Formats: sequence, C-alpha cells, structure tokens
Amino acid sequence: MSLAGATQDEVRRHNLAALVRFLHEHGSTSRSELVSHTGLNRSTVGGLISDLVAVGLVRETEPVASGVGRPSYGVEPVSERAFVLAIDLRVDRAIVAIVGLGGAVLARREHRFRKGQQREERIVAQTVEVCREVLGSAPEGGLLVGVGVGVPGLVRQPDGLVRFAPNLGWVDVPLGDHVAESLGVDVPIVVGNDSDLGAVAERVRGSAMGAANVIYLSGQVGVGGGILLDGRLLMGAQGYGGEVGHMRVNPKGRACRCGSVGCWETEIGEPALREAAGVGDSVPVAEIVARASGGDKAARRGLRGVGRWLGIGVANLVNIFNPDVVVFGGSLREILPATRDLVEDAVGGALTAPGEHVLLALPALGDDSTLLGAAEAAFTALLDDPLGAVSGHAARSRTAAGA
Amino acid sequence: MSLAGATQDEVRRHNLAALVRFLHEHGSTSRSELVSHTGLNRSTVGGLISDLVAVGLVRETEPVASGVGRPSYGVEPVSERAFVLAIDLRVDRAIVAIVGLGGAVLARREHRFRKGQQREERIVAQTVEVCREVLGSAPEGGLLVGVGVGVPGLVRQPDGLVRFAPNLGWVDVPLGDHVAESLGVDVPIVVGNDSDLGAVAERVRGSAMGAANVIYLSGQVGVGGGILLDGRLLMGAQGYGGEVGHMRVNPKGRACRCGSVGCWETEIGEPALREAAGVGDSVPVAEIVARASGGDKAARRGLRGVGRWLGIGVANLVNIFNPDVVVFGGSLREILPATRDLVEDAVGGALTAPGEHVLLALPALGDDSTLLGAAEAAFTALLDDPLGAVSGHAARSRTAAGA
Repeated sequence: MSLAGATQDEVRRHNLAALVRFLHEHGSTSRSELVSHTGLNRSTVGGLISDLVAVGLVRETEPVASGVGRPSYGVEPVSERAFVLAIDLRVDRAIVAIVGLGGAVLARREHRFRKGQQREERIVAQTVEVCREVLGSAPEGGLLVGVGVGVPGLVRQPDGLVRFAPNLGWVDVPLGDHVAESLGVDVPIVVGNDSDLGAVAERVRGSAMGAANVIYLSGQVGVGGGILLDGRLLMGAQGYGGEVGHMRVNPKGRACRCGSVGCWETEIGEPALREAAGVGDSVPVAEIVARASGGDKAARRGLRGVGRWLGIGVANLVNIFNPDVVVFGGSLREILPATRDLVEDAVGGALTAPGEHVLLALPALGDDSTLLGAAEAAFTALLDDPLGAVSGHAARSRTAAGA
Repeated sequence: MSLAGATQDEVRRHNLAALVRFLHEHGSTSRSELVSHTGLNRSTVGGLISDLVAVGLVRETEPVASGVGRPSYGVEPVSERAFVLAIDLRVDRAIVAIVGLGGAVLARREHRFRKGQQREERIVAQTVEVCREVLGSAPEGGLLVGVGVGVPGLVRQPDGLVRFAPNLGWVDVPLGDHVAESLGVDVPIVVGNDSDLGAVAERVRGSAMGAANVIYLSGQVGVGGGILLDGRLLMGAQGYGGEVGHMRVNPKGRACRCGSVGCWETEIGEPALREAAGVGDSVPVAEIVARASGGDKAARRGLRGVGRWLGIGVANLVNIFNPDVVVFGGSLREILPATRDLVEDAVGGALTAPGEHVLLALPALGDDSTLLGAAEAAFTALLDDPLGAVSGHAARSRTAAGA
C-alpha cells in the first residue's frame, strides 16, 4: 500500500513497461516525445531505451527534427522481435494471426468450420492446426510472448474457463488449457470474451481511440457487448459482465437460446434479421442490406424492424452507461449504416444528458477488432514486464515458434 | 507517472490518509491492526497516530489484549472533532444530518415539503433552513469539513450541476452553489446522484460491505441505480451513468416522464404500483404491502405485477453487470420481501454464470443509505488529506458551524 515500499527495481520495471506500452500503442516516436510522455528526465529515458535496444525490443532510427531545439533520435518497436498468436474463434470459423510488437499483423489465416463441427475437440484440433501453419511463417529470431483467444461466450476470469458459449453449444470448456497442450507452447494464454477484446482493440487502435467510456457491440448469431468504463473493462464479480444481448427488451417476444424470452439478441441477431427479411439461413447480412437498398421490400421491412429494436437497446445502454462512443461490430457493421436514422432517433429518446454527446461509430479495425484485441491481451505479460518476459520466455518461445 | 517522483511529504500524506480512512470505515481498532493493515512498521504507525492525535482527529484508548503478544493500544476516530453536513434531498422532503468522523450520526432532522413546492428556490431555502438548525447542535470545537447532497437526478461530474431531475422538474440547477451561498460555508460541497451515494454507503457500512460489484436500486416515484464496479462508481463520460430506471423493458407500455415509453420505472415506480393496486396517490407503499398480506386482492395483484417487472429488470442488470449483490432501496425495500419469489425466479432465468452467485439484499442502513452516502462523499477531502483539511479549513469551518 505504501509507496515507500517500491524498490528501485520495481520503479525501473514500471518505467520500462510504460515506455514499451507507449511504443506498442503509438508506434514510431522520438526520444523527446517519450521524455514528455513519461515525465522522466532525458538521461533516464536514454538508459531505459538502451536496455530495450540491448534485448532487441526497440530500435533507434535517424534523428527526427521536432520543431525548435536539436533533432531528437527516433525510437520504434521491433515487431519481428516479440510477437503473439491471436485467435478469433467464431461459430463458423477461426481467424488466426501473428501480431508483432507495435500491432503489425505479420501473418493471418482464416479457416471455416464445416457445419455441425462445433464439438469442442474438433474445433480445437482444427484451430491448433491453423495456428501451427501460421507460426510456421513467424519471423526468425522472434519470440512468441503470448497467445490470446477470443470466444463468443461467457469466460470466467481470471482462469479463462469458457463457462457457457450458447451459440457454440459449449459448457465449461477449459479452452486455454486445450490450446496450450495441443500447441505445446509455454507462454501465457489469455482467453477472453470476443466483444471485450473488440472493445479493447477499438480503444487502442480503432474508432474509440482516446475515449474512456466505450461500448463495443458484436452482432453475430448472438449479440455481445464489451464495455470499457474509465478505460477499464467491465468484468463484474466473476468476469461475466457485458452480456447485453440477454437484456430483455421484448418480454412478449421470441424464445432465446439462453432459456429466456425476448432477449435483445432475439430481435437484432442475424437469425432475427433473416426471418424478418424472409430469407434463408445462408444469406449473408450484407446481401440483405444490398437487397434492401436495391428496393426489395421484404428485406427493407426486415431491416427497419431490426433497426428499431437496435435503437431501443442502444438507448438503454446509453442511459445505463453514459458512454462516449458505441462501436457497432460484427454484422452490426452492415446493419447500422442501413438503419442509422432509426438508431439515432431512439438514442435521441434516451435521457438528454447521456444522449447528447454519444458517438455511434463503425469499427475502424473492420472485421478484425476481436482478433487484434486478442493480440492486445496476449501482449499483457510483455507490456507489464518487458525484460522479464523476454528473458524468461526466450528459450521456450523460440522452440515453440520454430515448431 | 513514475513512482520515483513521490516525495516524502506525499508518502506521509498517503499513509495518513490510509490510516484515517481505515479508522473512519472500521471504527475503534488497535495499533497492531493498523500495522498489519497498512504494512508499515510499528514506529511509523506510531508517528502517524501521534500526528493525528495532535490535531484531535484520533484518540488513543486503553490497551486492548489481542491474542498472543503484548496488549496493543486502542485507537479510535474522534467523531466530534471533524464532521460533515449530509443532505438527502427527495421529491417530498429533505433529510439533513451531521455525521462525525467514523460515521456516527450526531444530529438528524427531516423536513417535508408541502405539495407543489418543488420550485428550486423554495426547496433550497427550506433545506438550508433545516441545515442551519442542525448545525446549531454541532459539537463545540468540531470542524465542519464538507457538505454532501444527494438528489434524485442526473448530476454532472465533476462540477455537481443537476442537469435533469425529472421528478423534481429541475433542469440545470447549480445546487451546490446555491446551498454554499445560502449557507455561507466555505468547505467542499459535493452533489451526487441519490442512488450512487446509496451504493457507496451500503458498501462502506451496509449490506454490500466488502463486495466489489454492487448495484443499489432506489425506488421512489422514479427508479435510480448506483453501480459500483470493482469498488468504483460507474460514472460514464459526463457522470450520468446508472440511469437503469430508463431502461425500456416494455416498449408497448406507459409513457415515461423522460419522454420515452415503457421505461422500467413506469412499471415498478410507486405510481405504477398504486395504479396496479387501485389505490390513491397518498397511500404509502408499505400500506399496499400490508393490505396484500392481509388478503386484499387488488393490492396483491398489483404487487405481483410489479414484482414480475422488477424481476425482468434485475435479471437484465445481472446479465449486464455480473454483480456480487443487488441492494433494494427506497420503496423497493417494501416491495422486495413481498415479491422475492418472482424476482428470484426471474434472476434464475438470467444466464446461469452471472445469476448463480448474486445476492438480493435489503439495505442494512434502512432509509438512510443516501444520507450516509452523502456524508461519505463530504468526507472525501478530509480522508484524502487529513492534516491539510483540518489546518486549511479550521478557522472558516468553526465560524460556519457556530453560525
């Protein structure tokens, strides 16, 4: 509790962590910017940079002129030196990427599951297979420092057990353990809710950059929510917070897979839109939107209906959370532009004070918010203790990365 | 950002603050408990206590035997030395109290407004009048260190402007300034949402003691929510978060004062219960509950209907927040015991994971949660910097307290 207890080593680790996080999130910068960002003096920053250069996490670049004063050396993260494996596990596919320090996507592969293959062993086996392929193209000399996985379900924290993923049909799956064993790596594995990870990524690198209070909605079969308050993820008592898709908005509505009736996702999820638009299971949401704008009446009517329910739920969330920005991810990326008037109307019907400033945004990271959020989660250990993570995991990770 | 920047003075202030906060929240304790709580060594704690004794905030008591080892001196907060003025401003009345360090209520007065007197000038004038009376019985030699006010409305942070209090009919009222001017005091004045303050008080001294994730619901004409996540109040972008009463649960329902339709408070607020039970405006909620348990069919039917909607909204909040405990305050204190089966049923219909552990509780502070939360808010300045608050405000506060 007392600051007096902080040793010099702790202070140094803290400062190194702050430096690496800044470089990871902002990319190439100058020494003077690091000095002004950290509030540390020039020589301390210089010493810390030397330490990071020595282990290869950072490189110095040509001096950069920065207004008045003498030019300052440039500093940038070395994305090939430390990287993570990021997995966005969805109901119908797995997307796997290698993401380097600084956020560069170094390799990316997508694998669609065949229908009816959602049994956990098959999903895990196929996903691990894709991971191996992707790791095969990992940069030489680079260190795998973590694995991050996003899943559409309730994930218990801190252990990452997938308690319930209704649309995968999973109950109590220790996904992190399965992936770690099958992959044979010995680095931290973080499993998170897909929407939570989407929220984090959009805040670090996307539409919600710099915002403190963010709601990221992910529309698929179900609807999830990742909620950042004052920059911190809403977790709740056991880590299950943010299940906005199961907010009952229409108690006289449809049965939900969760066992309840009239949950928000029964009105705005992909199946609801398909039903309302009178199209089959395999028609993509983008196709429905295209048909509606082409004049198809059923598609148009379906979209309008979904748009009204979308607005009702978003207005609820605006009243409950007073967010700076709501980001519409997944299939809502297609639905929002086609129904924005309805959603804005509904938000206009929220209480004036929380409703007046909120921004309704599309994800700047497109379809990759969750994938990149999984990468951010996987970088946590490195960002908290850069030298410790590099020295501790170097040998093991090199093996794994080359496997 | 760097810990290296903390001066000895800052460390000392930090440690003094931790000690006083512990004494304020836990009351009488022993030196050894303070040593083990703070992690500081015995002589440091001794020195800090001497400083606090010197300014009168703390007194030492007889040695207390504490299991093995030599007996340890007792330490307790001096409630008459530093006190705050707490105001719970409701639609129909103002409750005002003097609360001493450690949480003791030293004086308390309640004043009912006559109907139709909600114009802000009259409300403020009458409330200030009650404050003056209460301050007249303030302990001699005591210092007024802050004023806290709870209101049923949207309060902008950090400046405390009451943006909108629909049930008072207020828009953009600088309540803190009005009270400070009329009262002629020069101490920090904190204005907060009534439910937010209720949540804080129930966590510090009530049913949610020790819980990190708390939802405090306050039922009156409207329904408010105070939400603590990881021990911190959900504020949102401008401080308006927690307006759970305006979650639309019944889009085909009644018009709400906020301009929307089917808000939760239109189904579970006091007017909804009265209408459902077929009783007049002046019948208290407790009377309806009594009638129902006495066999009155209309009262019973009304309560059951409200109970079902109460359950739907609580289940929504459980899914969204995954709280440890939900505290039912205001008129919900009467309604929960009479409808607990329905509410538990509905929460049982929430997702299993967040639903399985949540506790549905009545406020341990009874009707005073908001009042005592206003006191906690008013103590903030003292608890953050005990010696600074005492030396800085001593002269001014003595005058004000004696006025």
